[in-house]
Amino acid sequence: MKKVSLYEESGFNDLHMKRFLVHDSPYFKVLNFNFKAGQELPIHSHDIEGQLSIAVLEGEGEFLGKDNAAIPAGPGDVLISDISEPHGVRAKSDMRVLVTINVRVEP
Amino acid sequence: MKKVSLYEESGFNDLHMKRFLVHDSPYFKVLNFNFKAGQELPIHSHDIEGQLSIAVLEGEGEFLGKDNAAIPAGPGDVLISDISEPHGVRAKSDMRVLVTINVRVEP
Repeated sequence: MKKVSLYEESGFNDLHMKRFLVHDSPYFKVLNFNFKAGQELPIHSHDIEGQLSIAVLEGEGEFLGKDNAAIPAGPGDVLISDISEPHGVRAKSDMRVLVTINVRVEP
Repeated sequence: MKKVSLYEESGFNDLHMKRFLVHDSPYFKVLNFNFKAGQELPIHSHDIEGQLSIAVLEGEGEFLGKDNAAIPAGPGDVLISDISEPHGVRAKSDMRVLVTINVRVEP
């Protein structure tokens, strides 16, 4: 059991999205991405079987999807996506999100 | 791809913790638990191989662990625990948390 305090342990970077690895195990990977207003995680996908969630902790922006979809994203909004589906995030204000990545692993 | 707005789609219950299933797939399960001040998810464990995360979206309280551990928990705090390890949550103010449960699944 471990506790990670994202607001203390990570911050923002003026040049690009700040990436902070919270946890990595055979079960799942947890990441914290912090964006200054205007920064983004460009839309992308990976040819990997699995799903991810992106939960907004703080700030306002958009979840990005295929065909230039831009879905409003604010505190308490959670995006669920296949890893193979195009996905991204664009920040309109300073924004903190929590990303959880789940792939199938052999027992 | 789907978006769930926790602040719109779930609320609080005066009698007990409010449980809201956000997502369930072979990859992971995502739940939102909302607590009124004083409510709790009593400490418990399951004999299942896997890990879970509990992220505080809003409010103040404690993560509960074995031997009566009570770890302060506020916005942006994330607890990572084996599912088989004792874990729980106690709310000191109204509190919203996001729980992600990850077990090994057969490919």
